[in-house]
Amino acid sequence: MKEFIIIGHKAVTAPFSLNDLPGAAGRMDILCRCVNAALFLSHDLRRDVRVYLVLKGGAPSKIVRFDGASVRYLSPDERSAASLIKKALEKQAQGFWTDSTPGVSVKIGEFGDLLGELNKKITYLMEDGVDIRTIPYTGSSDHLFVLGDHMGLTDDEENIIKGREHEIAGVGPLSLHADHCIILLHNEMDRSEKHI
Amino acid sequence: MKEFIIIGHKAVTAPFSLNDLPGAAGRMDILCRCVNAALFLSHDLRRDVRVYLVLKGGAPSKIVRFDGASVRYLSPDERSAASLIKKALEKQAQGFWTDSTPGVSVKIGEFGDLLGELNKKITYLMEDGVDIRTIPYTGSSDHLFVLGDHMGLTDDEENIIKGREHEIAGVGPLSLHADHCIILLHNEMDRSEKHI
Repeated sequence: MKEFIIIGHKAVTAPFSLNDLPGAAGRMDILCRCVNAALFLSHDLRRDVRVYLVLKGGAPSKIVRFDGASVRYLSPDERSAASLIKKALEKQAQGFWTDSTPGVSVKIGEFGDLLGELNKKITYLMEDGVDIRTIPYTGSSDHLFVLGDHMGLTDDEENIIKGREHEIAGVGPLSLHADHCIILLHNEMDRSEKHI
Repeated sequence: MKEFIIIGHKAVTAPFSLNDLPGAAGRMDILCRCVNAALFLSHDLRRDVRVYLVLKGGAPSKIVRFDGASVRYLSPDERSAASLIKKALEKQAQGFWTDSTPGVSVKIGEFGDLLGELNKKITYLMEDGVDIRTIPYTGSSDHLFVLGDHMGLTDDEENIIKGREHEIAGVGPLSLHADHCIILLHNEMDRSEKHI
């Protein structure tokens, strides 16, 4: 299982207009592009992927999960992912996972709680991390990646990561958007799995 | 200069609704994501990039050009790129480039005419092409890439490429969306330029 956590520091936790994802919805467009990057192949979906969007633009914070194995009604465009996130936010979220549309769930929760629930080694993406091309991805297809939005991660969030088993990885010489990093991570894992 | 041509076989050539990019606008969402992938860095733009969108969902076909050196009013979300494409399609297009918003231009034209105008070696992206990691990108930062949309390229379009100097490249073991391929191409060139 490949799991991606993306933290949306301004992303709203209540239903929002699909016509203003960057503004009123708190850069929800970033999270929608991460869903696309994590789950889509050409004419197929990556079934072995889960995406967790941590929405911190409201109190309490919420987490929306997309499961590649069971997700339905998802198209590659931002508005499609946004529509499923919106539907999830219309649910009465609890402290446990509540199903929304097929393959999409929502809960009330914090980033730290989610790391505890998943309970595995974290790969945290940072500009000056260890080059992913030098990290051996073969031998395991079980990975948990954490990426920030346009604001990166807060010191508190970084400290939560540092309190757990983790490594800090980077995808190349330039600073890139989270969804672009996900594409590069997948390509590295795809190559490792096919021994290319 | 790094130039990317993306062919949108169903993409409309008249102004369209921003609320239905995949449907009524003829998979315009794909082209918008390619604009994002080609031009955006984190908190910056790639100034040495031009993107050409060949819109073939109307007659005559039109080409919309985004120039990273001068583009303005472009945000990373699909709707932002779509809005600039729509504005360009509101212009009275001719057989030569007409400026729309800053850094965005439009003309009436075919894919083959555009290749003649740019007149340089083509790298055509295909699933079974030569692995980009084995192609030496150093020594030149002048590249022209051609990518298809969800329909790939037609036989006619492939024949036009084959009539010119070209190579066929691939980005990895799985079939990916055009915008995801652009991310991988950029990363390879970024690494070459930094000798990583």
